[in-house]
Amino acid sequence: MNILRFLTAGESHGKALIGIIEKIPSGLALSSDDIDSELKRRQLGYGRGGRMKIEQDRVQILSGVRWGKTIGSPISLLIENRDWVNWQEGMSTESVHEGFLAPVTKPRPGHADLGGALKYNQKDVRNILERSSARETAMKVALGAIAKKFLSVFSVHIGSCVTQIGSICIPETMLKEFRHGISLAHFMKKIDSSPVRCPDEKAAADMMALIDRAQRDGDSLGGRFEVVVAGLPAGLGSHIQWDRRLDGMLSQSFMGIQAVKGVEIGDGFTYADKFGSKVMDEIFHGGQNLVNKEKTLEGGMGFYRLTNHAGGIEGGISNGMPVVVKAVMKPIPTLKMPLQSVDIITKEPFRAAYERSDICAVPAAAVIGEAMAALVITDAFLEKFGGDSLYESKRNYDAYIDYLKEF
Amino acid sequence: MNILRFLTAGESHGKALIGIIEKIPSGLALSSDDIDSELKRRQLGYGRGGRMKIEQDRVQILSGVRWGKTIGSPISLLIENRDWVNWQEGMSTESVHEGFLAPVTKPRPGHADLGGALKYNQKDVRNILERSSARETAMKVALGAIAKKFLSVFSVHIGSCVTQIGSICIPETMLKEFRHGISLAHFMKKIDSSPVRCPDEKAAADMMALIDRAQRDGDSLGGRFEVVVAGLPAGLGSHIQWDRRLDGMLSQSFMGIQAVKGVEIGDGFTYADKFGSKVMDEIFHGGQNLVNKEKTLEGGMGFYRLTNHAGGIEGGISNGMPVVVKAVMKPIPTLKMPLQSVDIITKEPFRAAYERSDICAVPAAAVIGEAMAALVITDAFLEKFGGDSLYESKRNYDAYIDYLKEF
Amino acid sequence: MNILRFLTAGESHGKALIGIIEKIPSGLALSSDDIDSELKRRQLGYGRGGRMKIEQDRVQILSGVRWGKTIGSPISLLIENRDWVNWQEGMSTESVHEGFLAPVTKPRPGHADLGGALKYNQKDVRNILERSSARETAMKVALGAIAKKFLSVFSVHIGSCVTQIGSICIPETMLKEFRHGISLAHFMKKIDSSPVRCPDEKAAADMMALIDRAQRDGDSLGGRFEVVVAGLPAGLGSHIQWDRRLDGMLSQSFMGIQAVKGVEIGDGFTYADKFGSKVMDEIFHGGQNLVNKEKTLEGGMGFYRLTNHAGGIEGGISNGMPVVVKAVMKPIPTLKMPLQSVDIITKEPFRAAYERSDICAVPAAAVIGEAMAALVITDAFLEKFGGDSLYESKRNYDAYIDYLKEF
Amino acid sequence: MNILRFLTAGESHGKALIGIIEKIPSGLALSSDDIDSELKRRQLGYGRGGRMKIEQDRVQILSGVRWGKTIGSPISLLIENRDWVNWQEGMSTESVHEGFLAPVTKPRPGHADLGGALKYNQKDVRNILERSSARETAMKVALGAIAKKFLSVFSVHIGSCVTQIGSICIPETMLKEFRHGISLAHFMKKIDSSPVRCPDEKAAADMMALIDRAQRDGDSLGGRFEVVVAGLPAGLGSHIQWDRRLDGMLSQSFMGIQAVKGVEIGDGFTYADKFGSKVMDEIFHGGQNLVNKEKTLEGGMGFYRLTNHAGGIEGGISNGMPVVVKAVMKPIPTLKMPLQSVDIITKEPFRAAYERSDICAVPAAAVIGEAMAALVITDAFLEKFGGDSLYESKRNYDAYIDYLKEF
Repeated sequence: MNILRFLTAGESHGKALIGIIEKIPSGLALSSDDIDSELKRRQLGYGRGGRMKIEQDRVQILSGVRWGKTIGSPISLLIENRDWVNWQEGMSTESVHEGFLAPVTKPRPGHADLGGALKYNQKDVRNILERSSARETAMKVALGAIAKKFLSVFSVHIGSCVTQIGSICIPETMLKEFRHGISLAHFMKKIDSSPVRCPDEKAAADMMALIDRAQRDGDSLGGRFEVVVAGLPAGLGSHIQWDRRLDGMLSQSFMGIQAVKGVEIGDGFTYADKFGSKVMDEIFHGGQNLVNKEKTLEGGMGFYRLTNHAGGIEGGISNGMPVVVKAVMKPIPTLKMPLQSVDIITKEPFRAAYERSDICAVPAAAVIGEAMAALVITDAFLEKFGGDSLYESKRNYDAYIDYLKEF
Repeated sequence: MNILRFLTAGESHGKALIGIIEKIPSGLALSSDDIDSELKRRQLGYGRGGRMKIEQDRVQILSGVRWGKTIGSPISLLIENRDWVNWQEGMSTESVHEGFLAPVTKPRPGHADLGGALKYNQKDVRNILERSSARETAMKVALGAIAKKFLSVFSVHIGSCVTQIGSICIPETMLKEFRHGISLAHFMKKIDSSPVRCPDEKAAADMMALIDRAQRDGDSLGGRFEVVVAGLPAGLGSHIQWDRRLDGMLSQSFMGIQAVKGVEIGDGFTYADKFGSKVMDEIFHGGQNLVNKEKTLEGGMGFYRLTNHAGGIEGGISNGMPVVVKAVMKPIPTLKMPLQSVDIITKEPFRAAYERSDICAVPAAAVIGEAMAALVITDAFLEKFGGDSLYESKRNYDAYIDYLKEF
Repeated sequence: MNILRFLTAGESHGKALIGIIEKIPSGLALSSDDIDSELKRRQLGYGRGGRMKIEQDRVQILSGVRWGKTIGSPISLLIENRDWVNWQEGMSTESVHEGFLAPVTKPRPGHADLGGALKYNQKDVRNILERSSARETAMKVALGAIAKKFLSVFSVHIGSCVTQIGSICIPETMLKEFRHGISLAHFMKKIDSSPVRCPDEKAAADMMALIDRAQRDGDSLGGRFEVVVAGLPAGLGSHIQWDRRLDGMLSQSFMGIQAVKGVEIGDGFTYADKFGSKVMDEIFHGGQNLVNKEKTLEGGMGFYRLTNHAGGIEGGISNGMPVVVKAVMKPIPTLKMPLQSVDIITKEPFRAAYERSDICAVPAAAVIGEAMAALVITDAFLEKFGGDSLYESKRNYDAYIDYLKEF
Repeated sequence: MNILRFLTAGESHGKALIGIIEKIPSGLALSSDDIDSELKRRQLGYGRGGRMKIEQDRVQILSGVRWGKTIGSPISLLIENRDWVNWQEGMSTESVHEGFLAPVTKPRPGHADLGGALKYNQKDVRNILERSSARETAMKVALGAIAKKFLSVFSVHIGSCVTQIGSICIPETMLKEFRHGISLAHFMKKIDSSPVRCPDEKAAADMMALIDRAQRDGDSLGGRFEVVVAGLPAGLGSHIQWDRRLDGMLSQSFMGIQAVKGVEIGDGFTYADKFGSKVMDEIFHGGQNLVNKEKTLEGGMGFYRLTNHAGGIEGGISNGMPVVVKAVMKPIPTLKMPLQSVDIITKEPFRAAYERSDICAVPAAAVIGEAMAALVITDAFLEKFGGDSLYESKRNYDAYIDYLKEF
């Protein structure tokens, strides 16, 4: 991120999550509903534990917006933790409550628990896990909702779907149109109504069955999801320095989502098997563009591709095709089935087991991926098109589109 | 990157590549040989074109080092392009040579050519491809060599190998010790003597045969490589903010390598298939640590794991196990076999074909991956341990290790 | 700032001010009282308008602190605007309240009003002035209070005083000990009880009389203040790059305070008149150090100076003497006495006059200066000494002090 | 700096100075002459030592420019140190030359020498002073020359003059037009032909006489200079966050110049003495703008001021008036007249005296100030107007100017 800045704060059972984002242009229509609707999309999903019902997240916009429009100043958001009432002493900021809860001394494998305790010199693992918890992603989604609203002004739309949970994959053919950004709104409507955010009904049913089985077994599941950004012009990101590449920034932002362990752009790891002659997106101009039909046919924007192996990015720069980011989420490490660990005080081994937890969070991760993509792309827009008001950014953008058409 | 800064500059056929790196502590022994030996490792590799012989890169250290030791000031490096003699007019900075070469108007699919031309408003694609070329990676490797030298003082060692070229993969079993950082020096000696940087002789032979075939066919190949960082203490990176996570920074840095399209930490995408109970790295303490034997047995550093699914990072923080980063490189897009493209001036279609190119650059990419890992880890060291002299950084590091042992 | 990050948000009459600060080590004792006491110091001061009584700022710590100690995660703060009850519609974020207040179309000379309206394309100047208001400095002070608490662990103490209001200056001799960090706690006790934060009683009385006169005349006053940071070791900041210099970072942070128009380090502009032979701080070692008596006598820390023309910084690096930053604040531009301006809608000239405003805010600015200095110095500490827990930062610091003594 | 990045490297007696600057748009005409002419301006000046004659700096552009135009990639510059031939062993990077020169163990008061030696743990002060030397400013000027060339496309012009050397000041009246950006080219022609870069002939003569006297006495002199940026539109910088303020960024960049100890914007410290009613720049619209006559009369850009107390910046945002930055440079600390110091090895006191040095470097500092201002303003341009090609940045800028006119 070069221009846009944002920070999140807040513990999982603390009073609230807080976020500040800065440099969103003035004049953007923005309401708490715009954000709450994304928060709701994050909270749905088959395989989530009981907390999702507790939360019912609602955002408060505390600054940066007046009478429904951004005014250029930093936007700050607050999401109350509804469970706070039960944690007022246990997570109090006041020293008077010290010792109200017994310390957590049993680090869970697969979490930040142990590394965090060692790094921050904490003998109560709660002081780590409260922040490393995926609860924080609610604020990522909230901030991403602002970025999405910004991008919608430029007809940039972002969608996602789950492509695998455990051993259940969806057929690649289901994704062809999605990865070309075709009928994205329609596709997303379908996704949003699937409990596992999966476009294939058969696969969705199998995924849910697998989740049920994992639940019975006290086990958990990970999976894969992908995010598509449609409507991007060519020319975002850059080849000139390693940290100005759009793919690099997307990659960091996705790997920065809790439990994500791999990121691909376009064909990703499947590139390895192929000969070069089979996987390059050949370049065409004008005429019948089957892909971004509306844009090229109407606007004659010019160059286009019929394939999208590169996932919309070549040489670190967007090429005008939809950007496709794929990611993998590891299974949730908090299990009923016991795992071996060691008490950090006594150094005695124990077998960790937990009663309440999500079984699978991949559907939520897909929504978080959308948010991170939106934030990175918004940053790239602001870098290329500048602008302090939406009017100005849009004017510069429109002029660039005209230039592209005439290039 | 939070503390360490570096920039590279230079065109592929320009006079030289330039790099500046800043914030390396004083007192580090550093010679041009330390860097040249890494440059040489990058240049080897079966399947490279003729240019590798032309280059024989040698670095000049222009500042920041005196009498064989760093002095704390910015280190600047220069690598002359040996081919410059043939390009003095074609790549001259002087306007008097304008038009000496005919413009390149035919963008190659799979490269930054078209996106770059549109972004930077260039009608001569050479003005893009000269910088987007992988030639720039020589400077990445040179800067990484400095970081490697720094890390060696802390007994942090970095190795890499190629695991797949085209359809030829190596057996996973070959990598078990590597991914645990066991006998890394011995392993790397073997890798460095393999023309495809592959630890399995059978696979290496098959890879070379496949490269030969691709060459005959005018085609190209990509593949996979992985990088291991051994000897890291727990506690680098952080869970507190998305952009302080060690995995995120590694991911950006690898995705920032030319032609890399996917990055995994540890088990990466294979996490998706598994149940949570099978893929967590259980936690042990003291006793017989089979993995970091020397450290834990001698130093009693305490907590350890017997598995390394997480690739050494949990919750964005190093956990004391070797860090394992895997990446995929797409096939080189410059082919003898023609690809469809469009002239940016005439908009006429043409079929692009090139005489000279590399067939496969995965072995080089592995070396570049080592460099990027070294830079990111050095940054994490400086953030955690501070220090302006090597003496100071090491003193702080040593005290932390003592603390870890007694935690 | 290289390591520490913070953002503030919030409008002057919005619901609240918000701040997030990130990278403060874990284990620091911190309570809302620590912050409120600084907020109170900011609100005092002769010549402030009625709002100071309305506010009585109280901070809420929303995250990053548990049971009275920091836990390493981002600390977020919220300060409610007590006046919010009167502005719920006028400053509402909801579009339903649009038009509740008539737009402000009359930009005030000397404020961000006009430049901001042009930059952000706003026809209601309130959308600018609500954020550019000095109300935001309450959050700067709150964040600075955290930094001060951190620095106190290292016996680094920060004080300030007002040296001039309007034409009334204090005698330079009053400042000699202050600028050498001698008896700082005692000095600050005196300052904190002065309504104009001025150490000279005669001057203080004259300043208040001048403020009274300005109030009668409908005019306003600026002035000068200075901030001293005592107890710093040599070696913070750096000469190696322009933006790593400690003086540069201090300068930006002070110039970033609303209405500050000049910053000096040490002798500052008076250096211009002098010959070089008169203004260098000669170097001594051991023996009778009159300045940092306790440190050098007890610890034999070694090198010292008897003068402090340089204000504790040479070549961008702290030299072990107290850091002295001086600044000027322009008179408050909101006056009862009318100023010429132009309506941004009608373009008609008008004469701007305001009923309620502060007359002089220099005493508050001094407190804000302390906060900014604390934040910059904390950043420099974290860069040099690293550390994720207070224990770790302090251990590294102590080892450095031992090294300095033996250098 | 938010978008533009640059790093410099190089020791005073090393082989060369190196600089990399990144994010300058493509399509800017740029030659080494553009840079050399600025380097020459830096080297002139009454009171400089013998080295100025040795140097005769010439830049080599190593990348980022082709056939006289920038291509968007990082621009790297190299300035050889002509004196290098005498220092090849003394400043060699090779360990084989270790000990060729006796170590410098006598730190000079007023320099980075002692603080740097302590910070970087160096017993040979040469390892500090080689980098802290003002020699580095040659690269600042070279990079600034690129920024100046960029800004000239937008009719933004930057000038400077010396206003005081030692006790000799110029009459304020000489600066009225300068500070309003009137006839800047003519003014600068005069300045460039003055050996002390002073617009007043009488004062210039007195300054030279004072320099002569200081030279005879083995003493040195500092002084004041100011920089004006004319032709800026309103709306650069921002009030929304402390580190986005234009004045703050300018302040850091000036304070980052070697030996600068104070920075003012507009009236600066003289604001302190005045009542608010006397120092605000009242706002007018249309009609007879005496100041930016050409712009407002021809273009009707609208709002203007008749005074410029604020130095072109209100609330951290440019207001359309010329930006005026003033700075003070302390006297050069390297004197023939002995100063007390302490040997860092023996801890024995000695009296430091030096044969060769500059007497006064204020004229050069003024040129360096221009360079820093150019870099900061270029960054602000890129942030506001975006653009990867000059064509694009200019198009966005032009549209903004049209908008301003119609606001």
